[in-house]
Amino acid sequence: MQLAIIGLGKMGANMTRRLLASNITVAGMNRSQEIIAELQQIQGFKPLSKIEDIVEQLPSPRIVWCMLPSGEPTEHMIKQLSDLLEPGDLVVDGANSNYNDSIRHANLLNEKSIQFVDAGVSGGIWGLEVGYCIMLGGESHSIEMLTPILDALAPNQREGWSHTGPVGAGHYTKMIHNGIEYGMMQAFAEGFALLKNKTEFNLDLADIARLWGHGSVVRSWLLELIADFLADDQELEQIAAYVADSGEGRWTVEESIKQGVAAPVITMALFSRFASQDSSSYGNRLLAKLRQSFGGHVVKDKS
Amino acid sequence: MQLAIIGLGKMGANMTRRLLASNITVAGMNRSQEIIAELQQIQGFKPLSKIEDIVEQLPSPRIVWCMLPSGEPTEHMIKQLSDLLEPGDLVVDGANSNYNDSIRHANLLNEKSIQFVDAGVSGGIWGLEVGYCIMLGGESHSIEMLTPILDALAPNQREGWSHTGPVGAGHYTKMIHNGIEYGMMQAFAEGFALLKNKTEFNLDLADIARLWGHGSVVRSWLLELIADFLADDQELEQIAAYVADSGEGRWTVEESIKQGVAAPVITMALFSRFASQDSSSYGNRLLAKLRQSFGGHVVKDKS
Repeated sequence: MQLAIIGLGKMGANMTRRLLASNITVAGMNRSQEIIAELQQIQGFKPLSKIEDIVEQLPSPRIVWCMLPSGEPTEHMIKQLSDLLEPGDLVVDGANSNYNDSIRHANLLNEKSIQFVDAGVSGGIWGLEVGYCIMLGGESHSIEMLTPILDALAPNQREGWSHTGPVGAGHYTKMIHNGIEYGMMQAFAEGFALLKNKTEFNLDLADIARLWGHGSVVRSWLLELIADFLADDQELEQIAAYVADSGEGRWTVEESIKQGVAAPVITMALFSRFASQDSSSYGNRLLAKLRQSFGGHVVKDKS
Repeated sequence: MQLAIIGLGKMGANMTRRLLASNITVAGMNRSQEIIAELQQIQGFKPLSKIEDIVEQLPSPRIVWCMLPSGEPTEHMIKQLSDLLEPGDLVVDGANSNYNDSIRHANLLNEKSIQFVDAGVSGGIWGLEVGYCIMLGGESHSIEMLTPILDALAPNQREGWSHTGPVGAGHYTKMIHNGIEYGMMQAFAEGFALLKNKTEFNLDLADIARLWGHGSVVRSWLLELIADFLADDQELEQIAAYVADSGEGRWTVEESIKQGVAAPVITMALFSRFASQDSSSYGNRLLAKLRQSFGGHVVKDKS
């Protein structure tokens, strides 16, 4: 069993390590050569210096798994692969791509009889150790081709991956997964802020996070992560109160609007991140000015 | 080791069973006698027919653990106990009481040198099997008196309970726990609604819930419960779209307002429940009428 993996960032490199540990040969390509040199120390890894090598070095039908950033890098690579690969070959997009892009990519590749599978991969940097949770969209025969790879990546054989539906359904399911994650994370953040701010009780937040891991209704992997880092430092004074967002939260809210299905908590979690990104909010300055205008309320000077 | 438990509902009865299994003697009182008859089958259970029996039947210092509904029933019982018990005795309130009430109850009992501990108990109907997660507020010597009981109730000795702070801190921590629970539950609800509504993918929600339990970022006990009931029935057609709320969600939002600390997701989760409780919303009728007034938009007749 072998495949090519394009893009050996945090996710791609760890997936490669997990596959190599299951004796699956991985031909890997990456812009930076540092990780290539590192992976070459492991038996079963073959470096690819250019994309054309895929066709020469892999037996057909070839499996090419893209782990590039979603958007332009993935877009560009799939176009290149559509010109390069042969009928019967299979392209997997394991990025957090928009499911509508994935349907478009499948159509582009299918015109040349190249198969496409969209794979939503969850597990973050812990996936190497624990295994990855993988949601797949595509044709059944494509998923069958991938089965030994999926079994190796998952936490347990056939327990950590699922063929959720046609092309697009893998990335759709992963998008909703991440939308739920936004809501859960924000709920924890708000709760711990209300604990932290209750200064008269002098609560030990690390102890509470640890405690809730045992038998409580909110026990979860996210809570385990919170307990881990609060045990080291519960003041978080060195952390800026700025929360980035990537595409999937936005897409979940767009999908909610498209479907006309209310998702107020996921939306509010996203909007809270936007607010955190905009500490000199024009809206808030306008509000302060408006309070001054109608009520003579004091405006705080920008310092 | 023995204690009295007042209130043998779902929680109180199961806690009694778990304590009896650890050879702790429980004197139990309940309005309905059915559960009393049932518990009498278990070695170590003693029925109490009236509250005065506590003083006669238990050795001092007595431990009286209340598992009554919060609010009036708990209020009434604590007043009775304050007249009945002796200095050095200890009252535990294990209900989901408002932490401000608990501070007031402690003051009332302390005037008569009776100890008070507020205990937030999580675990629901699964606690009997898994053990209860218990958050405690009170004096250290009171908690020491309770230690064998807490060790028996928790999932593992000293792993599932914690003395989080002074009187009030137990119920405060439990209140925030439940606030977080509101946000997490609503995030899952919104996500699964967006999966369900994506009819063109014909997604198997039971399979997705099961899948996410393996290696995904949203894995959690709540997700396990979702996976369990969706495996039986994922249409949920017999379930009314009405979500009740008890006090703790409201109190968390009140606390957020009192502290001036934003909790938009927890608040929105609570408001979503209110909306579910009000299917003939006056606000929505007014909005429909207003759209008709300014734009001539069609108003749907109530059918």
